[in-house]
Amino acid sequence: MSTPNGLVCFTNCLLPQEDGGLVEKDLWIDERRGVILDAQLTFFQRRQRPDRIIDLGGNILSPGLIDVQINGAYGFDFSVYDGDDEAYKQGMKLVAEKIVETGVTSLVPTIITQEKSLYPKILNLLRPFSTPISASLLGWHAEGPFIDMAKRGAHAPPFLLSAPDGFSSFEDAYGAHNLVDSEDWLMSSDGQCGVRIVTAAPEIRGVMGAVNELSKRGVVFSIGHSAASTDVATAAVIQGARLITHLFNAMPQLHHRDPSIIGLLGASPHLAFPAAMESFPAPISPLATSALSGVSSEAFDYRSSPGTPVQKPVISRVGSRSEFHLDKGQVADMTFDRPYYDMIVDGIHSHPNSVRLAYSAFPDGCILITDAMKVLDPSLRDGVHEWRDGKRFVKEGDKLYLEGTNTLAGSVVTLDKCVRNFSRFTGCSLGEAIKCATFNPAKCLGIENTKGTLRAGADADLVVLDRQGNVVSTWVKGRQVWGLKA
Amino acid sequence: MSTPNGLVCFTNCLLPQEDGGLVEKDLWIDERRGVILDAQLTFFQRRQRPDRIIDLGGNILSPGLIDVQINGAYGFDFSVYDGDDEAYKQGMKLVAEKIVETGVTSLVPTIITQEKSLYPKILNLLRPFSTPISASLLGWHAEGPFIDMAKRGAHAPPFLLSAPDGFSSFEDAYGAHNLVDSEDWLMSSDGQCGVRIVTAAPEIRGVMGAVNELSKRGVVFSIGHSAASTDVATAAVIQGARLITHLFNAMPQLHHRDPSIIGLLGASPHLAFPAAMESFPAPISPLATSALSGVSSEAFDYRSSPGTPVQKPVISRVGSRSEFHLDKGQVADMTFDRPYYDMIVDGIHSHPNSVRLAYSAFPDGCILITDAMKVLDPSLRDGVHEWRDGKRFVKEGDKLYLEGTNTLAGSVVTLDKCVRNFSRFTGCSLGEAIKCATFNPAKCLGIENTKGTLRAGADADLVVLDRQGNVVSTWVKGRQVWGLKA
Repeated sequence: MSTPNGLVCFTNCLLPQEDGGLVEKDLWIDERRGVILDAQLTFFQRRQRPDRIIDLGGNILSPGLIDVQINGAYGFDFSVYDGDDEAYKQGMKLVAEKIVETGVTSLVPTIITQEKSLYPKILNLLRPFSTPISASLLGWHAEGPFIDMAKRGAHAPPFLLSAPDGFSSFEDAYGAHNLVDSEDWLMSSDGQCGVRIVTAAPEIRGVMGAVNELSKRGVVFSIGHSAASTDVATAAVIQGARLITHLFNAMPQLHHRDPSIIGLLGASPHLAFPAAMESFPAPISPLATSALSGVSSEAFDYRSSPGTPVQKPVISRVGSRSEFHLDKGQVADMTFDRPYYDMIVDGIHSHPNSVRLAYSAFPDGCILITDAMKVLDPSLRDGVHEWRDGKRFVKEGDKLYLEGTNTLAGSVVTLDKCVRNFSRFTGCSLGEAIKCATFNPAKCLGIENTKGTLRAGADADLVVLDRQGNVVSTWVKGRQVWGLKA
Repeated sequence: MSTPNGLVCFTNCLLPQEDGGLVEKDLWIDERRGVILDAQLTFFQRRQRPDRIIDLGGNILSPGLIDVQINGAYGFDFSVYDGDDEAYKQGMKLVAEKIVETGVTSLVPTIITQEKSLYPKILNLLRPFSTPISASLLGWHAEGPFIDMAKRGAHAPPFLLSAPDGFSSFEDAYGAHNLVDSEDWLMSSDGQCGVRIVTAAPEIRGVMGAVNELSKRGVVFSIGHSAASTDVATAAVIQGARLITHLFNAMPQLHHRDPSIIGLLGASPHLAFPAAMESFPAPISPLATSALSGVSSEAFDYRSSPGTPVQKPVISRVGSRSEFHLDKGQVADMTFDRPYYDMIVDGIHSHPNSVRLAYSAFPDGCILITDAMKVLDPSLRDGVHEWRDGKRFVKEGDKLYLEGTNTLAGSVVTLDKCVRNFSRFTGCSLGEAIKCATFNPAKCLGIENTKGTLRAGADADLVVLDRQGNVVSTWVKGRQVWGLKA
């Protein structure tokens, strides 16, 4: 389908804007380079003409959807490695190539808590990856093992860890070479590094002390599977945490006097600092009994190195920012921005009213995820299916739970359906819902110039949706990979 | 201070608008009639000149504040009647005359759960009331006795009631003459009727069946001291409930899959109806054990008359409204509007993050209340004080709790301080905060043409606030009743 100048102009379509609007406008791409073009520059200044004009019949031309939490799909589970590297690679490829039917063009495969020795093996395989006809795997999302036993959900208790040596414990678990400090490492094509997001509980021993270092290395620290109090959650954000994993699920309910992690959506910078100042240096009060073996109340001291003398931190206001003197003597420039939060909007994990409450509190922070299991596959029947570790799960429509329990075990919803649900639950426009599955996750990951956007220079990863939000066709780097050929 | 034509023009001031804005503009009043004038008509058309021009030096000229939940102040408790009518009347007068120092010009005195025989006595005394130099008592707020034992807070267990006969049980408790159906009864000067707001738990036997009748008679049904599930709370709103009493306090936490009463702030009409349709006719599942003696699980059947054959309700959409066939065969026109909700913004009853979460979810529904106890009096010392029923409470700053417990027992915060707190907690402007203590409560009560507004024809109940929200002076029906004389 290559053409002399490779210019394609999509016309008769609505383009989602970064403010959630939908605007009738053409979009120009260079299908040979696989990037979006500046129409103004291309058409009016260079006076170039497209080789191909594609009339989208009034449909929506959106950036491809981004799923930052997905455990597997089409029968493949990113968290299961049985020693066969080739089979694992084939599974990755299968997911990457099939998921485009749901409008997803970028995903962050999620590894749930593993037996420690498995991490290096899986992570060596699970690097940034794509094929010319597939979605891009952007690196991996490590959900665990540094999570709270009390909020473990379906994670395996024996494999949970604390981080007594702070950041070193994270290096020890995931491999130091997976946490290398490099500019824009994620998007490099050599696939050198892989850790993109870490979901952990800041109240677990040593975790708080690692947040800042992880953040500085470009890893998104996400608060999740956690029982953190408001003060601890706030301190984690000040340290650099910029995401909340599946808001509402695996965390305390919104208690009005200690609204905890959910309450961060209502936090104000000028109030967060004094609160953190009061509580930061002192060991926080032991939380409700944790069953995590070997983790006593001392585990909830979130200084990076237990035993280090605690120094009173000094917060001095410098303009609108505050300087925060850490107990190790470092001085870090700290700001407080409310974290992004992701939600599984399948109508099961959270009630529509809860979804609307969260979204109205902080629209710009909202990210839609599937948290899908390997059963994500529109053709799969309801019933009991094998899971992992000898356990089985039950699928009932969009509902998935561990056999014999009420514990939800991820989901089977597709991201395009989440977009439609979200618009219906919140009353927001389709453009605003699309933003939560494109621009917001891209911004959280720091890749909003390349993915999840229609900015000039970005990858021409696109999805055409009808006015009801159903996927009509999907495009990867300028090439149509799904749907009836245009 | 009377003048030939009685016209007063306030100038050099900011006027709070009904959209939360603050606009630099003059305000004209007729101090003889005690009403706000249409400046356009008075000045430009009739070419009248004011007898008096008052320069407010750039301060804010707000409608007087309205407190819809206040238990007492300055040592007087609306809920305590010791048989001396004159003493009770003196107490009412004392509160009405002193409260103006806090910027409040209208209040709804609140009676907490009483021994049943006391209601008629107190209610005969507690009618709409004002003096020329006092705030107006607008009628009373009956908080209880139809509340849930499990969420009773400081209410006395032996006095809680169910409503086996639906609306008749309410008439029986409060007196039928206090629930008379009449237009604009509240604002009538003869003080014939008194019930303005009822706080009750819709899951308590018979209460749901009374909501519609109460609403039709102009009583604001407020959901509070309740453990209602999402479905029950939603059904109550469809029946006519239009307020939530002290949001967050004395109700279930926001559970993501059953967000209950708090979740109503995120409810959407098009989703609420199908949910209510599914759940309305069936007895709801018994709630967590209630200790209320004599109230079995049957108590949670919210049909008006237990034993009545349950008919499937029919909801047919008529335009944007739905018709809802009740189980008694009535057909009522039902709409779903999210209810107003009131909050005690003293920084104690709810964390600032919770306050901001709620406000961002539904700004137009937000109402600030004090829920103040008789100790409301800026001059009162911290320490242990006598309460009622032989109990004592402890005051520590703005915090009040039952001696020997952690149970909060109302508050001592003033409404003007709530306004300032609210602006700080949520980041909203002072104009937006003022709206939550003036226009929003007035609209909830259906008196927004008379109180809580600067509309022409409204009562000239005014409060001058400085740019930090501190009360400078208070005016009642055009007459200054507090502050340095202008």
